[in-house]
Amino acid sequence: MEDLKNSLVPTSEPESLSELRIGGEILFRGKVLDLALDTVVLPNGREATREVVLHRGAVAVLPIFPNGEVLVEEQFRYPHGRILLEIPAGKLDSADEDPLAAAHRELAEETGYRAERMLCLGEYIPSPAILGERIHLYLATGLTEGERSLDEDEFLTVRRIPLSDLVDAVLRGEIPDGKTQIAALRAHLMLERHTLDLL
Amino acid sequence: MEDLKNSLVPTSEPESLSELRIGGEILFRGKVLDLALDTVVLPNGREATREVVLHRGAVAVLPIFPNGEVLVEEQFRYPHGRILLEIPAGKLDSADEDPLAAAHRELAEETGYRAERMLCLGEYIPSPAILGERIHLYLATGLTEGERSLDEDEFLTVRRIPLSDLVDAVLRGEIPDGKTQIAALRAHLMLERHTLDLL
Repeated sequence: MEDLKNSLVPTSEPESLSELRIGGEILFRGKVLDLALDTVVLPNGREATREVVLHRGAVAVLPIFPNGEVLVEEQFRYPHGRILLEIPAGKLDSADEDPLAAAHRELAEETGYRAERMLCLGEYIPSPAILGERIHLYLATGLTEGERSLDEDEFLTVRRIPLSDLVDAVLRGEIPDGKTQIAALRAHLMLERHTLDLL
Repeated sequence: MEDLKNSLVPTSEPESLSELRIGGEILFRGKVLDLALDTVVLPNGREATREVVLHRGAVAVLPIFPNGEVLVEEQFRYPHGRILLEIPAGKLDSADEDPLAAAHRELAEETGYRAERMLCLGEYIPSPAILGERIHLYLATGLTEGERSLDEDEFLTVRRIPLSDLVDAVLRGEIPDGKTQIAALRAHLMLERHTLDLL
């Protein structure tokens, strides 16, 4: 392990962990997700089934102002029956849409703001065992205000709050949404380490 | 907004955002997840459908040693077709299992380690628009080594690495798994702010 101290690339032999698909079917094709029931061969040669939710992917954006304030949204989330505080986010229009273009689009539609710069924070896999969704995370800077253009059936309110308040709330365990926790903590640490410039 | 500067409790009128279920059906009942197709009434009075993945919930645990090293796992994740580096985690045995008991169980089964203390970090909602899953996050300290007891069809390898390496990898965008990003960054900030004691 000594040689790998700073590398977190997986070091396991792939054949010791990998599962190979040998069959399956799509049980449901929806507007937002598909459901597949697949049969796989495990590393020990036995067969198993995998219930897999397929999703075309999404983007999420933390818009941050030079004074350290950020934009967040309040939105009702039906699977949880409650209003959550989240950063702006949305599905890709198609599986091959450029995530950067989607980030600019979703930010403008949901908040009205346009960003001069989108800094990619890499990907976020929300629930790797069951859900194929990958979310591309961005920090948006150089913000200018414009018009919102919500879908007719989209309801959310936008708030502007200090990043430090958001980080404190995350550390108190008060912000359940995963992408919001990650974006807030990463932006905070990047500012602390001077690897993020807000101007 | 002044009065609420430090509160991140949602401030929107619930009726301006909430969706009310007026019907629906379970399309699939699986071993790991169920799929529901519901009809809701939106705040504007119109109807919409919601594709909802139901899940009984899960726990995830960051085990941390007095020297600042942590335990992580390498596991093949079928929906993504790749090996991911993640903290130990697992589903609740039933929707009403005590998450704290599940955290102790999963840690012992997957890593062999027992924890004297489990510090609750609150909940993590991975994908709030489509997935009902909530993950209870814990930091485990006071670790003692014992025997692993993996399920016969469960394959993963355990690695012990410095938390600082994990945090650096998260900030470089190299750790896609959401619960792992959150637990690493939160533990790091709690240590920095002296709100976490490893001894």
